[in-house]
Amino acid sequence: MSLAEFTLIDRIRARTVERDDIVLGIGDDAALLQPRPNEQLVVTADTLNSGVHFPAETPAFDIGWKTLAVNLSDLAAMGARPAWCTLALSLPEASEDWIEAFADGFFALADQHDIALIGGDTTRGPLSLSVTAMGQVSRGQALRRDRAQIGDDIWVSGTLGDAAGALRLWQQGALNVTAATLLADYETLRLRLLRPTPRVTLGLRLRAFAHAAVDISDGLLADLGHIAARSGVRAEVDADALPMSAALRELLGRDAARECALHGGDDYELCFTAAADQRDALHFVAESLDLPITRIGRIMEGQGVHTEGHDGPSGYEHFAG
Amino acid sequence: MSLAEFTLIDRIRARTVERDDIVLGIGDDAALLQPRPNEQLVVTADTLNSGVHFPAETPAFDIGWKTLAVNLSDLAAMGARPAWCTLALSLPEASEDWIEAFADGFFALADQHDIALIGGDTTRGPLSLSVTAMGQVSRGQALRRDRAQIGDDIWVSGTLGDAAGALRLWQQGALNVTAATLLADYETLRLRLLRPTPRVTLGLRLRAFAHAAVDISDGLLADLGHIAARSGVRAEVDADALPMSAALRELLGRDAARECALHGGDDYELCFTAAADQRDALHFVAESLDLPITRIGRIMEGQGVHTEGHDGPSGYEHFAG
Repeated sequence: MSLAEFTLIDRIRARTVERDDIVLGIGDDAALLQPRPNEQLVVTADTLNSGVHFPAETPAFDIGWKTLAVNLSDLAAMGARPAWCTLALSLPEASEDWIEAFADGFFALADQHDIALIGGDTTRGPLSLSVTAMGQVSRGQALRRDRAQIGDDIWVSGTLGDAAGALRLWQQGALNVTAATLLADYETLRLRLLRPTPRVTLGLRLRAFAHAAVDISDGLLADLGHIAARSGVRAEVDADALPMSAALRELLGRDAARECALHGGDDYELCFTAAADQRDALHFVAESLDLPITRIGRIMEGQGVHTEGHDGPSGYEHFAG
Repeated sequence: MSLAEFTLIDRIRARTVERDDIVLGIGDDAALLQPRPNEQLVVTADTLNSGVHFPAETPAFDIGWKTLAVNLSDLAAMGARPAWCTLALSLPEASEDWIEAFADGFFALADQHDIALIGGDTTRGPLSLSVTAMGQVSRGQALRRDRAQIGDDIWVSGTLGDAAGALRLWQQGALNVTAATLLADYETLRLRLLRPTPRVTLGLRLRAFAHAAVDISDGLLADLGHIAARSGVRAEVDADALPMSAALRELLGRDAARECALHGGDDYELCFTAAADQRDALHFVAESLDLPITRIGRIMEGQGVHTEGHDGPSGYEHFAG
């Protein structure tokens, strides 16, 4: 480990929140942690590579934010309370400015959720970021993909397709619009792509109401497909009910917007199922969090994901492992 | 996540050991684990990049082995019992043969230590491997770097410098020897570099005897420097006492061999300190494990690491943060 590497790690280390359950943080061979009694441990790992998971020109702040956000979103989908994380950061060169901005983004989100960085590694190489995030949940309380029940409503949080819409516009190059309102719409979508909001608090509240949950990282149909496959049920989605932002509809038009909402990834909203008699309770939760939730379908006997809309059945069947 | 990626993950998933404490393994948003009551969690993360941490032509089996070994070595240095790990695997192309050989190496070592793969991510990119390994240790039993006591003996396990010697010879290109015995010596060193043996069982046994411990990944002086710095003591090393393999001395000569033993990294032996009245007990442990340990120095008042040998004091002082 080079001196420069020490300095980078020291710089990052100094930024993390303190937690009472960290006996030893960064600086020994490993971190030493005191899990809560009677809780289970929830662990997820996700990697972002430059040019694959984000455009190479993405600002360092946003990379830092998103690196953690995609992992927190997985904890949210399990109903877990975030606790600790490790970061493997591979960097082409040790730029202090880049590291500072990256850490600004990473810890802006980490501090919101009281998750501490307790280990990691800085290596020389093409830009790549791997986080393993750990959370805790009371025994038997975790939200799983394999617990959807026949007759359950299917819900999603927030709006769908914004991130995919932003990426589509970004890849087309400069926007062919000059109107201020459209540029504002574009900024709205871009922020959804660059700085997704993991629905951690919603996940925690859903433990009392939801049967199954998944976060939408690969697209609604693909991720709902995981619930259907693992629960052994069929998911029926009303394509007319999908929540879409005004910005998305404005910039892409209705058909492309719906396409993004059904298939686009990277929104990091939660999709969950719950019994029909929980509707009032769920609306109350959503209001208290100031986060809209929308009922988009129903769990039936069968398999796969089926969409229907004003054009009649789509015939689209998505099977995922 | 592409279909190919699913297949790779499925392929890897099927290879992992089962453990009773895994409520949900790979396949949900995150793994769900049941830690043991009254134990603390030990977490470490290390990344290996091709061309930086191993030569690009390293066989896939050895990359798989070493990726896990360097992390198990950190758990060993804490006296932790391995439990679970995540793997972030970045691959330039999805070669099934490469993955199979990599998994062979990874799980050969994982199975030995009953550590389960419970999450991870396969992405497209330059070859890079990040593991976060988790272990458990009873409360207050962990081996730390900051507990060395004045008067402690300093010990190391196994032999030192073999991996650095192998790398030196490898980088010089083909060996300029044809004698079968020398080639056998070279193979001995190469295996030490490619398939280091994490001293997990020794670490577990040392909990009863050692005050401080560290694994030797960056070189004896550098890593012992961590113990000195964090314990606020001085480490006095007898350079004549360093355990070196016959193969290393044969191939490199005495001076270069000693240089490798003092400064070379990648051996993944343990360096630890213990009270002088524990010598008999420690020799008994070493014999029962069939793993030599060697007393190489003493902890004194002061700071830094100081070496003495047959040439008199080296004057070498190593300060590490």
